[in-house]
This record gives sequence, structure tokens and C-alpha cells, in this order.
Amino acid sequence: MTDELLMIPGPTNVPAAVLEALSRPSMFHRGEQFARCLQACTAGLKQVFQTRNEVLILTASGTGGVEAAIVNCLSPGDRVVAIRSGKFGERMAEIADRYGADVTTIDIEPGKAADPDQVREVVADVQPRALLFVQNETSTGVCQDVEQIAAAGRQYGALSIVDAVSGMGGIPVKTDAWGLDVVVAGSQKAFMLPPGLAFVAASDAAWQAAEEARMPRYYFDLPAARTALDKGQTPYTPNVNMFAALQAALDLMLAEGMENVYARHAMLGRACRAGIAALGLELLADPHYASDVVTAVKSPQQLDSTRLVAAVRARHNILISGGQGELKGRIFRIGHLGSCQLDDLVVTLQAVATELNELGYCCDPQEATAAAYAAA
Amino acid sequence: MTDELLMIPGPTNVPAAVLEALSRPSMFHRGEQFARCLQACTAGLKQVFQTRNEVLILTASGTGGVEAAIVNCLSPGDRVVAIRSGKFGERMAEIADRYGADVTTIDIEPGKAADPDQVREVVADVQPRALLFVQNETSTGVCQDVEQIAAAGRQYGALSIVDAVSGMGGIPVKTDAWGLDVVVAGSQKAFMLPPGLAFVAASDAAWQAAEEARMPRYYFDLPAARTALDKGQTPYTPNVNMFAALQAALDLMLAEGMENVYARHAMLGRACRAGIAALGLELLADPHYASDVVTAVKSPQQLDSTRLVAAVRARHNILISGGQGELKGRIFRIGHLGSCQLDDLVVTLQAVATELNELGYCCDPQEATAAAYAAA
Repeated sequence: MTDELLMIPGPTNVPAAVLEALSRPSMFHRGEQFARCLQACTAGLKQVFQTRNEVLILTASGTGGVEAAIVNCLSPGDRVVAIRSGKFGERMAEIADRYGADVTTIDIEPGKAADPDQVREVVADVQPRALLFVQNETSTGVCQDVEQIAAAGRQYGALSIVDAVSGMGGIPVKTDAWGLDVVVAGSQKAFMLPPGLAFVAASDAAWQAAEEARMPRYYFDLPAARTALDKGQTPYTPNVNMFAALQAALDLMLAEGMENVYARHAMLGRACRAGIAALGLELLADPHYASDVVTAVKSPQQLDSTRLVAAVRARHNILISGGQGELKGRIFRIGHLGSCQLDDLVVTLQAVATELNELGYCCDPQEATAAAYAAA
Repeated sequence: MTDELLMIPGPTNVPAAVLEALSRPSMFHRGEQFARCLQACTAGLKQVFQTRNEVLILTASGTGGVEAAIVNCLSPGDRVVAIRSGKFGERMAEIADRYGADVTTIDIEPGKAADPDQVREVVADVQPRALLFVQNETSTGVCQDVEQIAAAGRQYGALSIVDAVSGMGGIPVKTDAWGLDVVVAGSQKAFMLPPGLAFVAASDAAWQAAEEARMPRYYFDLPAARTALDKGQTPYTPNVNMFAALQAALDLMLAEGMENVYARHAMLGRACRAGIAALGLELLADPHYASDVVTAVKSPQQLDSTRLVAAVRARHNILISGGQGELKGRIFRIGHLGSCQLDDLVVTLQAVATELNELGYCCDPQEATAAAYAAA
């Protein structure tokens, strides 16, 4: 059996060089070799995050990083505004609520992006300590206008806490230039690694907030992580093999050049949307905010998308995703991020089109391919 | 350069078969392949933990698992008794305090183990909701009497929350037979894996406590993990590659047979202590409670142990550990756990003895070897 092609929005396919680095003998986490690796990883992440501040690396998945972002900036009772753009926006609201924040939500229709003007109105009204939102909403294939949303919050003094787990590294996030306060990313997306590491960048304002923040935390305490980083360490035993792999992955990304990486993802986004349109299918996402790392497609003719996902897997060995929550059965999603190349996408569109025909939706696979190549 | 031999109390050397499993392409975390892997891992862990309850697997290091154990059982204001047997006992007290527990500590002199009778007295006095303690205190090379300590707590209704991170898999822990409520282990010790996964077993009483526990948690919410496990999943994206490696490591452990694994560790503990004694050196640990997975040795003649650790590393490519906190410079520690074999230990004793002579402490390396072989 050959390996499955992962065309889901994470975990993504891990390049051989990264798998090789992952499988090297474990480093001692209090030694010089690890300190050098940690330094190289942090330096690389700062380039990807476009920040002069430290980027802390936590041994946890993205959700752990998002929790760290929230609990290090806030105290119980603090007012926050959370933009529920989909499953991951909901999760931010849940975490803040769980730790005792006073959460006001802005609910976004699936496939839409938050309107910065509406955000500004709510923030003006609520005067929150922080504004929580997702850059790239994996569940709906929407990439929000991070810069404008953060600016709307900043106008009223709200810290911006951004879940960029699924987009960072594939879609530009200008952490410093856009004045973002806390930005979280995860290893298993555009970084081409397995899951298991979260990356958190924090602004000076966020570090100040951390000094006063009284939500309890220990494993996810960011000041402890920053203090340890100054000594070339982490506060608790890190997944050293994942750090070695991260260094290898960052080497690949920076060798390609971040501008080229972003251009490749933009190309994949265009190609996927063109292919989907050529099949007569509709995007879930507002085209103006369609993500370049994941494309969510409405299932045609009441077809249960879980059947399509199963058929594409069973007969083509390609994994695509269905919908989550209320979107289950109603959409399918193609991830095109990380090490993904145009050919991976084209073969996926072929498989999707072929199985759609099998399931009774008539379309021409070759048109999808031609449209994808033309748009690339 | 050849690989370093890790003779520290974690991370430990990872067998080639486990590194191979780690470096396989990432699995989809919501698919059948992962569900099968998760099921196999859970089944194997239940054998190692000697429990009929589920063992939950968290993508975090051991400290994250200990935090999960505490916050899922307790509410702010709850009285707890924490046994500060060393650095890791201190950490349990810190975590509980950070989340608002009312912590009474029992402070143990470095190298000693808690006296169950003393614990019983304190518990009788404090009437805590939980008793927090460490099975194998890595920082001092002491293995405590888990069964008796837990029994002392249970006599007054205290839940036992046990940090077995560094000993589980190398030293028997009879979770159910000893009536332990929450037991935490970590991947990078006797399990022969890189760091990055924590394992948590919970008793029926602990699950009941979790229903009432009001310490906030999200990423570390154990009921969420148990609910997801029933569907063959984890609540948040797990480190799927580490799960594949865990399955491979458990296969190795169970193929060797847990009784044989424990016997090998007991043999390594005896051999190490005999070798150290033959060099005229003293253990830090009370011999009655000397750990079979890590041996802490007092530095002779005011010798700064950090120099010994550096010399053993520089000239032999073997990593041993120094002391932590107030023990820094005063002890060195040899880890002998996981994939460790007698020859690894003997070559380490040779290196230690050779460098002790270089540093001015006169001893005969050959006597250490002979004593270790004789005791094995």
C-alpha cells in the first residue's frame, strides 16, 4: 500500500527531510545541541511570523497554544469579544469562557468573514480587554482580514489575540506591521510537520498584560517559557525530536523563500477554486475571503459529502475532509498547504470529479484539470 | 560523530524500531488508521499501568499530564497535601497552588522518602481532598512507597494523585491494586520515546471528582479526552507520529514482557549501586528507597559534579546529569531506564571512574565494572 495523500487542512504531508530529522536520536533538552536547535527554530519562526519579538514554542497542539494566548493575557471577569467565524472561532470563545472571561460573541454566518466595521461597533460598545479571532477558519475555508479586524479592536484598546494555526506559513501574517498582540500557529499545517508543537508570538503590550493576568496557568505560562528561552531551554521537557524536525522544515521554507511559499499557496488557492468552478460547484466561502490553504465546497444536489470523502479515500487513497458540526455532510474541504504542489491538487480534483460522477453528479474531470492549470 | 549515549533520567535512548515508526508519514487524526493505533496504545498502556480504567494520552510533556491530573480533580480552595520530595514534588505543590488549592506541604530531606506514618498524621490533621506525591523522584534518585502513602491518604478520604512520570514502565506501579486515583506517566522515560506525550489513568473516584472539580481547564480537560476516546479520537489534534511510535514502543515492552522489563530495571539499579559503592562513593538516596531507574551519587571530596558531567560528555560522548536546585554541583545522576542494557551502564561507570581519577579522586574503574557485573 502506498502512503495516503493528505489533502486535508492538517495534518499535512511531511517531507522526507523533515521525517528524517524527526527520527534522529533524541537530544538532551538541557544541553548545547538543543539550545542551538531552539535558537535556530526561534529565529526561523520570527521570520515566518514577521515579528521582532520572541516566538515561543510549546509542546502541545494548536489548541494548547490558543489557550496559552488567552490565559496569559486575561483575568477572570475581563470582558472579551470573540468572533465566532466557525468551529475554531467558537473554540476561542469557549476557552475564554471556561477561564471566567465575560465573553461577548460576534456570530458569523458560515462562509462569511467578519466585517471590520461591525467588529468596531461591538468593540466600541463592549470595551473589551481583548478581541479574539481566527485568521484562517479551517472549518469554512474563510481567511479573514486580520489587519483590519485587529485595527478595529485596537481603536478601543483591545488586545488582538489571533488564532493563525491553520494559515500561518501559507498566508502572510504581518504580526508587527499589523500590530497583532498574540499570534498562535501550529506545526501540522503549512509548517509541514506532524502535530505536537504550537508557536506563540506576543507583543510588548501582551507581555505587559501577562504581568497582570490572573487566569491560572502553569504548563502554558508564557513568561516561564520566555525566561527559559533566554537560557536556551524550555521550562518543561520539550519534544526534542519535533524541534529537530521544525528546524529542518524551517530550513526548507526559508530556502524556498517565504514570498515564494506564499505565492505557491496563492496559486494553489486560485487553481483549486478554478477547478471547483469548472465542475459547476459552489464555494462555501465568500469568494472575496476564500482561503488559499483550504477550499470548502458545497455538496451538490443534496449529495451527502461524507460519501464523497469516503469514495475518494477508498478508490484514490487521497484524504479530503467533510464538514464539521452543522456543516457535516453539506460540504467537503480540500486542504492545499504545506508541501502541497499543483500536481497533488490536480490529482485530487480528478479524484473528486470522478467520484462525483459515480455518485450521480455529472461533471467533466478534464475541465477541472484544465481550469486549474490555467489559473495556476 | 557517533550518537551520544543518554544515561540521564530522560530523555532516554529511542530504539531504532521506535524511531522508524516515528518517521512514518503522518496519519489523519480523525480516520480509522489512527483510531486503531489509539486503541492499541490505550490497551498497551492499561497493561503497563495495571489498570482496568482508560489511560488517556495527552499531547504534552509529563508536567502537562500532572497539571491535568490536578485541575480535573480539584476546585479552588480545596485543601491538598503535597509531598515535596524534591524538584518534582515541589512542582506538584506549585501547580496546585497556582490553581488556587489550599496547599499543605510535607517537606522531605533530599534523598529521603516520605514516611507513610507521618503522611497519615498530616492527612488526619488537614483532611485534604487530595494527596499529591511523586513515585520516583528523579531529582534525588528516590522511589517512594506509593502503595503505603496512598493508603495513608485513603484512610481519610484523600484522592491519591501520583506523578509516576519517571518511573512508570521501569518500576511496577499497581494502579488498581494499590487504589491509586490518578497516575501520570511520560513518554521520554521507560517508554523509550521522545518527550511529548503524557499518559493519565484515573479511577472511578477521580472521574466522580472531575464532575465537581471547578479548576478551569480546556486543553487538559480529561472528560473531553475520555469522550473522544470512545470515538477513537482525541479532542484536539494529537501528535499522530508520536502515537505510531508509542505503539511500536509498547510492542517492544510487551514482547519483552513487563515482568522481564521490571527485572531488567531492578538489575540495572543493583548493578549501578554496586558499581558506585565499589568506587567508594555514596548514594544520595536512602538505600532502602534507592530508585531502580536513576541513581543519584554524592560528589566526593567537594568535587564540583558539573565538571565530572562535562568531562564524561566531552571525552566519552556519554550524558549523565548533575544536580538540580540546591543539589547543583553536589551530586551526579545516572539514568538507567528504557532501552538501557547492562553494557550501557558498565561503560558509563568506566567513564565516570576514569574522569573522577582525572579530577583528582582516586578510584579503580575495574572494581566498578566487576561489582556491577557481580550484582547484575
